[in-house]
Amino acid sequence: MTDFPADLGEIEVRAQELLDDAAWEYLSRGAADNVTRAANVVAWQAFRLRPHVLRDVSALDTRTTVLGTDVGAPILVAPTAMHRFFCDEGEKATARAAAAADTVYIVSMAATTSFEDVAAVAPGASRWAQMYMLSDRGRTRALAQRARDAGYCAIVASVDGAAVPTRRRTVQQSLTPPEWFRFPNLASDDNADTADVMALVEDFDTSVTFDDLACFGEWSGLPVVVKGVLRGDDAARCLDAGAAAIAVSNHGGRTLDGVIATADALPDVVDAVGGRAEVYVDGGIRNGVDVAKALALGARAVLTGRPVLWGLAVGAEAGAIHVLNVLADQVAKAMAFCGAVRVDELTRDLLSTVVVARDRNEGET
Amino acid sequence: MTDFPADLGEIEVRAQELLDDAAWEYLSRGAADNVTRAANVVAWQAFRLRPHVLRDVSALDTRTTVLGTDVGAPILVAPTAMHRFFCDEGEKATARAAAAADTVYIVSMAATTSFEDVAAVAPGASRWAQMYMLSDRGRTRALAQRARDAGYCAIVASVDGAAVPTRRRTVQQSLTPPEWFRFPNLASDDNADTADVMALVEDFDTSVTFDDLACFGEWSGLPVVVKGVLRGDDAARCLDAGAAAIAVSNHGGRTLDGVIATADALPDVVDAVGGRAEVYVDGGIRNGVDVAKALALGARAVLTGRPVLWGLAVGAEAGAIHVLNVLADQVAKAMAFCGAVRVDELTRDLLSTVVVARDRNEGET
Amino acid sequence: MTDFPADLGEIEVRAQELLDDAAWEYLSRGAADNVTRAANVVAWQAFRLRPHVLRDVSALDTRTTVLGTDVGAPILVAPTAMHRFFCDEGEKATARAAAAADTVYIVSMAATTSFEDVAAVAPGASRWAQMYMLSDRGRTRALAQRARDAGYCAIVASVDGAAVPTRRRTVQQSLTPPEWFRFPNLASDDNADTADVMALVEDFDTSVTFDDLACFGEWSGLPVVVKGVLRGDDAARCLDAGAAAIAVSNHGGRTLDGVIATADALPDVVDAVGGRAEVYVDGGIRNGVDVAKALALGARAVLTGRPVLWGLAVGAEAGAIHVLNVLADQVAKAMAFCGAVRVDELTRDLLSTVVVARDRNEGET
Amino acid sequence: MTDFPADLGEIEVRAQELLDDAAWEYLSRGAADNVTRAANVVAWQAFRLRPHVLRDVSALDTRTTVLGTDVGAPILVAPTAMHRFFCDEGEKATARAAAAADTVYIVSMAATTSFEDVAAVAPGASRWAQMYMLSDRGRTRALAQRARDAGYCAIVASVDGAAVPTRRRTVQQSLTPPEWFRFPNLASDDNADTADVMALVEDFDTSVTFDDLACFGEWSGLPVVVKGVLRGDDAARCLDAGAAAIAVSNHGGRTLDGVIATADALPDVVDAVGGRAEVYVDGGIRNGVDVAKALALGARAVLTGRPVLWGLAVGAEAGAIHVLNVLADQVAKAMAFCGAVRVDELTRDLLSTVVVARDRNEGET
Repeated sequence: MTDFPADLGEIEVRAQELLDDAAWEYLSRGAADNVTRAANVVAWQAFRLRPHVLRDVSALDTRTTVLGTDVGAPILVAPTAMHRFFCDEGEKATARAAAAADTVYIVSMAATTSFEDVAAVAPGASRWAQMYMLSDRGRTRALAQRARDAGYCAIVASVDGAAVPTRRRTVQQSLTPPEWFRFPNLASDDNADTADVMALVEDFDTSVTFDDLACFGEWSGLPVVVKGVLRGDDAARCLDAGAAAIAVSNHGGRTLDGVIATADALPDVVDAVGGRAEVYVDGGIRNGVDVAKALALGARAVLTGRPVLWGLAVGAEAGAIHVLNVLADQVAKAMAFCGAVRVDELTRDLLSTVVVARDRNEGET
Repeated sequence: MTDFPADLGEIEVRAQELLDDAAWEYLSRGAADNVTRAANVVAWQAFRLRPHVLRDVSALDTRTTVLGTDVGAPILVAPTAMHRFFCDEGEKATARAAAAADTVYIVSMAATTSFEDVAAVAPGASRWAQMYMLSDRGRTRALAQRARDAGYCAIVASVDGAAVPTRRRTVQQSLTPPEWFRFPNLASDDNADTADVMALVEDFDTSVTFDDLACFGEWSGLPVVVKGVLRGDDAARCLDAGAAAIAVSNHGGRTLDGVIATADALPDVVDAVGGRAEVYVDGGIRNGVDVAKALALGARAVLTGRPVLWGLAVGAEAGAIHVLNVLADQVAKAMAFCGAVRVDELTRDLLSTVVVARDRNEGET
Repeated sequence: MTDFPADLGEIEVRAQELLDDAAWEYLSRGAADNVTRAANVVAWQAFRLRPHVLRDVSALDTRTTVLGTDVGAPILVAPTAMHRFFCDEGEKATARAAAAADTVYIVSMAATTSFEDVAAVAPGASRWAQMYMLSDRGRTRALAQRARDAGYCAIVASVDGAAVPTRRRTVQQSLTPPEWFRFPNLASDDNADTADVMALVEDFDTSVTFDDLACFGEWSGLPVVVKGVLRGDDAARCLDAGAAAIAVSNHGGRTLDGVIATADALPDVVDAVGGRAEVYVDGGIRNGVDVAKALALGARAVLTGRPVLWGLAVGAEAGAIHVLNVLADQVAKAMAFCGAVRVDELTRDLLSTVVVARDRNEGET
Repeated sequence: MTDFPADLGEIEVRAQELLDDAAWEYLSRGAADNVTRAANVVAWQAFRLRPHVLRDVSALDTRTTVLGTDVGAPILVAPTAMHRFFCDEGEKATARAAAAADTVYIVSMAATTSFEDVAAVAPGASRWAQMYMLSDRGRTRALAQRARDAGYCAIVASVDGAAVPTRRRTVQQSLTPPEWFRFPNLASDDNADTADVMALVEDFDTSVTFDDLACFGEWSGLPVVVKGVLRGDDAARCLDAGAAAIAVSNHGGRTLDGVIATADALPDVVDAVGGRAEVYVDGGIRNGVDVAKALALGARAVLTGRPVLWGLAVGAEAGAIHVLNVLADQVAKAMAFCGAVRVDELTRDLLSTVVVARDRNEGET
């Protein structure tokens, strides 16, 4: 039934074969010259592990908690948009996959399925709701309250929407939205069927500051994860403003090309947070060894975005489950080879200080 | 009307397609093995940004001043020679484009249009006049005075003309000068139609020193920008000699191959100048993120050379306007994503200290 | 008779030509993306030698001892599995080659020839027996005692078997075991003909700790070399637990992809051991200069794995002898050019501190 | 008459086209994997110049002295073997070329023309004689005395002959010596026509030490330059033993592959010598900018080897003159652009400390 390649790289290749060019470009591209998108991947590789031997790893366990929720492995499903482009069931398939893999699914505000419908297909699972502050704060408040009412456990407030990104090719415009296309989470109250993909980013509130973070919690009564932080000082200010957790992210290299890789930004954020809150990270994580390195650098868990979409493309719900399981299995192997039986035994001491150069040719032309 | 690619890389490709080989070689090549020309581009990429989030950027403004002149963005038109090779109207098109883009055009001594004719087509705009000290100081004085009389606001004194550069292929010699070809700024008083492109560099005064810098100001009554400085100690001596500003430049890698990239030289110059004067930089700047990095390193503005010529080649005045507008838009995006609403909020703290190796394969063979 | 290429790189090419694809893949591949396998090779190259001149090297001698045994050069035969895949005589050919080259052959637990048969073909030579702690400790004890009874001089206890490695392609499964295929060292007492290559790794005891190291010595009465250590702290604990020597190894990049290269791990281990025991190293050593660098970093000797298999593939016993002789000759040349007449004159001072970047593109896709 | 390419890279290409494969391989190859040969070239490129501006360079002069002899530029002809493979006149052409270029020609012991015949064709020029200490010291003494008698001004004692180098392909053996082939400098007194190219290296005395250096001076009455030093401590010992100068060299990467690049070794030697003697350097110098960098690092002059052979191959004497003139012209340009009017104004301060990574892919396979 799940006759998928064991290697995520091969799943990526198969996804590219199955998707049409516009969807693939949309999925895979970063901003501008892809410098940051590629740097994300390279930065994890540049760290080398110094594994411990001769530790009893027969009772190894990858389980952990995120904001108090049990998960089978420190791998959450990152918020990504428009899953119905990648398989017919879209976010419903993702929701079932995350539940099957025993992890949290962070549903995107720009999902092609409503928060409520996503929740309905996997009622026992944990979900968080991702959203930007919109210029129309009433719409944002309504969205936060819908998420709460649908049983979501946290708000993931994205803070990297200060401008419309530069894209080498205007892939969004070449994506021909099919008839069913909607952003049901963004529909206004009066006209639930309306959605304009092009106008979405323009709706973001570019005046949002640390002081506004508290709104998400006030509106929803839920803890707030701030996603898109790349600096320790900003992370500390988020915590001062009431954030429950920080997600280090550069949006998969899709916002400002030339920003620091997330693996390189993570230690600064971890140090600034100083254990006061959980820190997650996404960007360029392509196997379980990268996950282990992220945890060794101080992350509580990682968010995985594109690999889940590859899984949806190659096998819908089963494909996404496979991707999540492969990553979890690889984390377990990495832990075993490093002599760590619990995720909190992955510490910085496991990382080598030998300099592996990050090559300038990180981007594509 | 302006149906140009949104990406400067694509504009470069189109320019290469439209120009004949000799013109393209002349435009694109650096000295010798292109090591420095390529290093210029790579050095900007090697810096990674650490953007701030959650700052109100709704009222973002890219405007600044250079020597007291208002410009719409910190991007000036660098002095480059012989624009009539790239479009029929040559420097007149560039002048109109700079005016439309609300910025300063630094007109080259080796323009194929006279300082006066350039000034006449865009009377309301700000222009600076670039020149080398010629062995015949009387000719240099006359040129400085012509610039003043034509309403130019500053003299840009180039100081990187100590020798004839080594070029891999003698592209200048393969450029067949058409009938109209003239250097009207360099014509002697007696014979306004004479111009010898080959003899130009030989006319440079190789005995010029810091003590001679004051001449440009005395002759013209204008502030003097010294262009071609790559060291802090030299920059300080320029200021002591009365310079109003410093332009860090290696002439786009066209003089001595093997000199330091301008992005790597800039911090030393900025530190030595210590706020006493404005510092500009050119070389390898290919998008607005590079501009933002230059300002973060302490530059007041950048000079853009080859991209403007690509614009002239693909669309004459409209093409050059497009290039300048794209760069300005990208600067605005970079500022927004970095949480900077004014250009002076771009500071060094935005740059990562993670080492991104500069590869040895920077040049071409 | 020995008309083999003088260069090991050419021998590698010839071996690839002669072996079928599955055998070559099995031999050459590392885990996952080959990052560590490739990093092993690159890390040696990154060190540059600072040779001494004007020393009398006319009486140069590459001889040394390992655990008190004389060897002609500081190059031992690493334990590698299933030599009968590479030549008909398998481990018997290797044993004769090691004897001819005057060095120690470390026979793998996963040999396709029994410890006893290997010993019988080269009775005068020194051999060590490699093994993992199996979940069935009785089987492990029996194996250690068989090695002792067959005249082996040391137990090489591998400690890098905490999990089943991730392999890009399941090369083991594509290897079609021929009729003769057996792991005679692993056969149970009751059924000497049984061997299941797939089940081998699952038999490893993942609960083994430093406290268990002593078993190997107690069972066999032999000194114990701990193989697979990559950290100084672990090496020190091995010595505290009674180990006689440490072999720095990442299993040729075949276990956890992303671990540190052995050349980069070696100095830490050497420093932690502090002369209390011998330290060996393997991984990525491809010529005698690499051997000299390993000794300069503090290794007593190197273990060579894949090159011996190339030799078996291209010329059975004679091919393996050739490989070992080439390496020994190259060590002698390296010593001569460095002004070292004895191996203990290869010291760290011979290595340059100039940083040669390790490229990120170390692995293959 | 001298219609040669202005660029040495193009001359190299033309030389390769003109020479047969064996001669080209012999000329161009380094030892083993070419790691050091390639690293030599790369190491110069990795240094970046920080040129001075606004210095009067109208009276620039590249002249200097080596061991008291005036030369037109700091570029000597390195000792290389068997010039008759590259043009009919062989070393006679080289001698006339060096004289025409106003520099010193260091004639190789392995020349295909005798020291005497070389001297006869350019009587007014300065020449030094290169030699190894042979096992038969009487032959070495005779050779040193012949050099003195033929008017040579210095003995260049090579000290990098401790072993026969490893060559990827045995290019020497594929070179079919033509009928005229002789090493007249190495012929015994009794049989002046005998020469065995294969036996040459075996004749080197591998027991030679610092104490033996004085022999060359005692035998010849000439100053002794020690060539092949790569460490400061060795250089100091050479001076203590009476050496007049040090030539930093790794024999163009032709001895032990993996030794440090000469550009990286030079500063250590310069610092250890501390101005007590002249230091020269060769290896990887491919243009005048590299020469300027070598002098900035403290070298008194460079030795150029392969480029002169390219010149011989493309144009015999005229080709070699062209190569030497191109290099001298490029040095002059580099000095001008750096604001240096005399060679002693090229100082370390002109070199940037920005790290340009040396790539691992320096060698060829």
